[in-house]
Amino acid sequence: MSEQRVHELRPEHYHTTFGPHAPALTVESGDEVIAWCADARGLDANGEQIGLESLAGPAGARREVSNPVTGPIHVVGAEPGDALAVEIREVTPTRGWAWSTTPAEFGFFSTEDISGPTSFTPPQWAPEEQREFRWELDLERMTGRLTLERSRAEAVEIPLHPFLGCLGVAPERGETRMTMTPGRHGGNMDCPQVGPGTTVYLPVYEPGALLSLGDCHAAQGDGELCGVALEVSCRARVRVELVKSRAMRWPRAEDGEHIMAIGSARPLRAAYAAAHVELLAWLVEGYGFDRFEAYQVLSQVGTTRIGNVVDPNYSVVARFPRQYLP
Amino acid sequence: MSEQRVHELRPEHYHTTFGPHAPALTVESGDEVIAWCADARGLDANGEQIGLESLAGPAGARREVSNPVTGPIHVVGAEPGDALAVEIREVTPTRGWAWSTTPAEFGFFSTEDISGPTSFTPPQWAPEEQREFRWELDLERMTGRLTLERSRAEAVEIPLHPFLGCLGVAPERGETRMTMTPGRHGGNMDCPQVGPGTTVYLPVYEPGALLSLGDCHAAQGDGELCGVALEVSCRARVRVELVKSRAMRWPRAEDGEHIMAIGSARPLRAAYAAAHVELLAWLVEGYGFDRFEAYQVLSQVGTTRIGNVVDPNYSVVARFPRQYLP
Amino acid sequence: MSEQRVHELRPEHYHTTFGPHAPALTVESGDEVIAWCADARGLDANGEQIGLESLAGPAGARREVSNPVTGPIHVVGAEPGDALAVEIREVTPTRGWAWSTTPAEFGFFSTEDISGPTSFTPPQWAPEEQREFRWELDLERMTGRLTLERSRAEAVEIPLHPFLGCLGVAPERGETRMTMTPGRHGGNMDCPQVGPGTTVYLPVYEPGALLSLGDCHAAQGDGELCGVALEVSCRARVRVELVKSRAMRWPRAEDGEHIMAIGSARPLRAAYAAAHVELLAWLVEGYGFDRFEAYQVLSQVGTTRIGNVVDPNYSVVARFPRQYLP
Amino acid sequence: MSEQRVHELRPEHYHTTFGPHAPALTVESGDEVIAWCADARGLDANGEQIGLESLAGPAGARREVSNPVTGPIHVVGAEPGDALAVEIREVTPTRGWAWSTTPAEFGFFSTEDISGPTSFTPPQWAPEEQREFRWELDLERMTGRLTLERSRAEAVEIPLHPFLGCLGVAPERGETRMTMTPGRHGGNMDCPQVGPGTTVYLPVYEPGALLSLGDCHAAQGDGELCGVALEVSCRARVRVELVKSRAMRWPRAEDGEHIMAIGSARPLRAAYAAAHVELLAWLVEGYGFDRFEAYQVLSQVGTTRIGNVVDPNYSVVARFPRQYLP
Repeated sequence: MSEQRVHELRPEHYHTTFGPHAPALTVESGDEVIAWCADARGLDANGEQIGLESLAGPAGARREVSNPVTGPIHVVGAEPGDALAVEIREVTPTRGWAWSTTPAEFGFFSTEDISGPTSFTPPQWAPEEQREFRWELDLERMTGRLTLERSRAEAVEIPLHPFLGCLGVAPERGETRMTMTPGRHGGNMDCPQVGPGTTVYLPVYEPGALLSLGDCHAAQGDGELCGVALEVSCRARVRVELVKSRAMRWPRAEDGEHIMAIGSARPLRAAYAAAHVELLAWLVEGYGFDRFEAYQVLSQVGTTRIGNVVDPNYSVVARFPRQYLP
Repeated sequence: MSEQRVHELRPEHYHTTFGPHAPALTVESGDEVIAWCADARGLDANGEQIGLESLAGPAGARREVSNPVTGPIHVVGAEPGDALAVEIREVTPTRGWAWSTTPAEFGFFSTEDISGPTSFTPPQWAPEEQREFRWELDLERMTGRLTLERSRAEAVEIPLHPFLGCLGVAPERGETRMTMTPGRHGGNMDCPQVGPGTTVYLPVYEPGALLSLGDCHAAQGDGELCGVALEVSCRARVRVELVKSRAMRWPRAEDGEHIMAIGSARPLRAAYAAAHVELLAWLVEGYGFDRFEAYQVLSQVGTTRIGNVVDPNYSVVARFPRQYLP
Repeated sequence: MSEQRVHELRPEHYHTTFGPHAPALTVESGDEVIAWCADARGLDANGEQIGLESLAGPAGARREVSNPVTGPIHVVGAEPGDALAVEIREVTPTRGWAWSTTPAEFGFFSTEDISGPTSFTPPQWAPEEQREFRWELDLERMTGRLTLERSRAEAVEIPLHPFLGCLGVAPERGETRMTMTPGRHGGNMDCPQVGPGTTVYLPVYEPGALLSLGDCHAAQGDGELCGVALEVSCRARVRVELVKSRAMRWPRAEDGEHIMAIGSARPLRAAYAAAHVELLAWLVEGYGFDRFEAYQVLSQVGTTRIGNVVDPNYSVVARFPRQYLP
Repeated sequence: MSEQRVHELRPEHYHTTFGPHAPALTVESGDEVIAWCADARGLDANGEQIGLESLAGPAGARREVSNPVTGPIHVVGAEPGDALAVEIREVTPTRGWAWSTTPAEFGFFSTEDISGPTSFTPPQWAPEEQREFRWELDLERMTGRLTLERSRAEAVEIPLHPFLGCLGVAPERGETRMTMTPGRHGGNMDCPQVGPGTTVYLPVYEPGALLSLGDCHAAQGDGELCGVALEVSCRARVRVELVKSRAMRWPRAEDGEHIMAIGSARPLRAAYAAAHVELLAWLVEGYGFDRFEAYQVLSQVGTTRIGNVVDPNYSVVARFPRQYLP
């Protein structure tokens, strides 16, 4: 095996879509990439706003800096029908604070989530009550602290677990999807499992796979309930490896404890189904389980985590503990 | 007003996506277009299969001839924030038969609709039972006839009402969506209301609007239950007119009887909500209804039709009878 | 055939649940019943409020007058596994006005519909904006008129089509369900099709079937969008007939134009599925269709109506035109 | 405080519904109850089938032994508007084996879950493939072992964590619900969190609350995917305590790590919403959080577990870690 190369990618242009775009970087299977990423509003490591002129794509893609991603990375030799293994080695916040908000027109309890806002469906959280929150990050102790202004306690301090909200490739069937949307191609899955120690397997749909990443969350609860996590810029270090002829219908992942599959769809039941069907397929094809025995054992030992219930598709992570693998 | 021009568009290339593609034709507001369209499998007026080499787009878009559309048509002066009025003047089948099927992996009762097919979720309709149906079309009497082979009756004959399953523009936010998917940009709505006598209003997201159309259905029931209508090639005649600064969140339409809005989403409730919210917005903004009185009166006189419950997004048509408009 | 008897039922007690309650009337198959029904708030023909002391059942059922029904009617000989045919011969409003409202905590756009109201999910329609509407009914011309106070028009006048919002039997498995909820036993289906000229077939789950009815709507649009129709007291005349050994999973119905099945469930897709599966079963078992040919033909000629999208279960009516029956 | 009394309840009759039934036992607030429970098929500690004659209720409730529960227990002084705290002190399997199955007509991937089985929607898992599984339980080591017959491994051994699948009171509004169904009254929530160490708070709807319990699961994964856990008879020891005037819309719970709320509804999103709305209400009313700060902090530290995705209502558990409570 050839020596592993390390590439550093500091983007000149950002994309707000996953699609068959011109690569920002070309690497070989086995290479490592250090990618610098702005946060979900396009604030960089210095807290400076990236401009609309930094965005790539047609007119519609250059109107708003929303979940800009770094990439795409072309992986030499990747062809439709392959899988791309992305080992996440490091996700490091690059500044000492994160923003969050409880938005009026986004999030699990917003009207937007149901039908789109109009004067007929005023947001449940009145706009004047939309609140901005600033979390102070202690990157030594890896904690985040929020001052509470109206509650009985004065502050809350929580451990950080930075991960990539967005990780994806060019979608299937020639589609270009906004980075807000997760799907079979990965995308904005917002799953805390997509962090250091995890290898994510993405299906390849276009030559070169065209991997992009970004949207670091320094911490997040299940479901990203209000629609916004501890949003921060980051430096991510990933190793990409090509797995030839490995068809998958949904992203898979593994860490030291679990093998996993991630389904993203609406309604929530469809995401739940996609994740579990893909995990069952892996148990049978990859580990020699009979399918009914896999179904039975998964029903008794499987755990399920909810990535997001706020994005254009919801994301569900189905997990099977490694200790029960044959 | 200048003289109306008539353009004829016989496609050299077909698209299986709606997106910011290079125009096949450029027209001015008020012009009429006669567009020749292949059917959903790419069979043309002669029943000949168009080839993969006729498809445009990146690799992923050239793998399967699925719902190929004719276009895009660039309308001079169309800008984001405008609406495009598409008056459907004629939809004429161009051959004497239509195909249909009850597919194993598509349609309202298929497993595909829930979670995607794998060996874990065998189709409910076993593949050997997937059935092809050929409807003979009498274009004089405008009827379709299906011979029944296993039922108590020998045949069924139904009236035809040809319409465009696909009608849409380039999507918002720089996205490119496969022609199978309906959305805010129109697309594969599969609504029988989108036929002769109806004017459809589509939101404009990209310069020129970039209108495409196709997927003629000679007849179809509500919901397109099995996922396939009487599929046939056609010649469509439409007149396009630009409506400046008419923001809409979902397609609107009108005919002699109703004003309508069409929502496309999953789950079905979200499509239902989108259509009715958009229609309420029109009643208030366009017709001087107070919003609570609009809500009350729509609740008592509105009718709702289901376009499709089988595509990647379901489509619902909310209708308000003209006779109760102020 | 024996002479048909006519019974008149003026209730002493009202029920707010469907269940295995003591009968208010016992009839034989073939008999006709004239039942007097209060409206959904318990206002009778004189506009007087029936009292809590008129309600039957345990403590929880006597706290609110909500959708009180008249009955139950015991049909001699009805056993689980039979069906009860209820021919609706007349539904006549018994007063000259109907009330409606656009409630803050009920209806398709209310938060209640999603998760129940709390201070965390304020209703989308602020309570001070909840509006009451009074429709004047002209029972000669069969029209309803609403004065508009804030819209460009002064009034709207619509034709009446009175029907029974509630029609049901004691539910399966020994359950007692509140009259707000539709299900396999019928109940609060809120389908305009359940009116004069229609025969509804209900599955029998308890000895005697135990039919109850009420909740007259003088008019209503598809879906009962705001959750409230033109609510009025009525006199209903129905003929009941026992159909032995006719197992059905969901209510069926027929009129001069269609055979129908009514599914009630959440989400909307499940109600849609239940109605269409039941209708397909009827086409095969009752009319000699092959099941794939039934699926194909229903897909091309079926029409679907939405009864309600506001009750604890949504109701969908799947229809097949009589003219295409073998 | 008076001395705590301990009652033992060995049922003479079982109920397959939660409702306002005659009490099998009357206790005072603070008392402890040891209840013997059969498993979900009605197999007792000796593996013997309880008979239909042991079931209580009307005809429809005595047709099938399905999720029989022990109770109801009348708690003296309980009134609508109170809450009943049920501290679960012990759930002990009473035999050395559990059964499970991968049913054809039940479970997350069954057609039944969508629309009810008919000849039109054959089960995805063909009946001849429905498989029965017998888990051997080692109650010393608290492990369960399943022999695998067709997989690469010979067996799988898992830790047990017995809990109560069913725990509930008489429902609101005078309803009687089958024990298969979870709801605001608790019921068949199938949440592994409802086990020893947890106190569950149930809303009281009828005088005496009328608590019933049963359906022990010796182990279960999230969601109870195939619809069946390690089903076993048990002896449960619970302490009940009355909390006066504590209105809740959904069950709450707490253990040493979390405070929780449990929502049960369809679709899955509605259960998810109910659980999180109730938990937010608790954070504000019970712990002095400002509601927007509660929403923000819950979004970052909350964890969500899925109880079941197979019962007539799905159940979701929303959790907030105690360490972040003010």
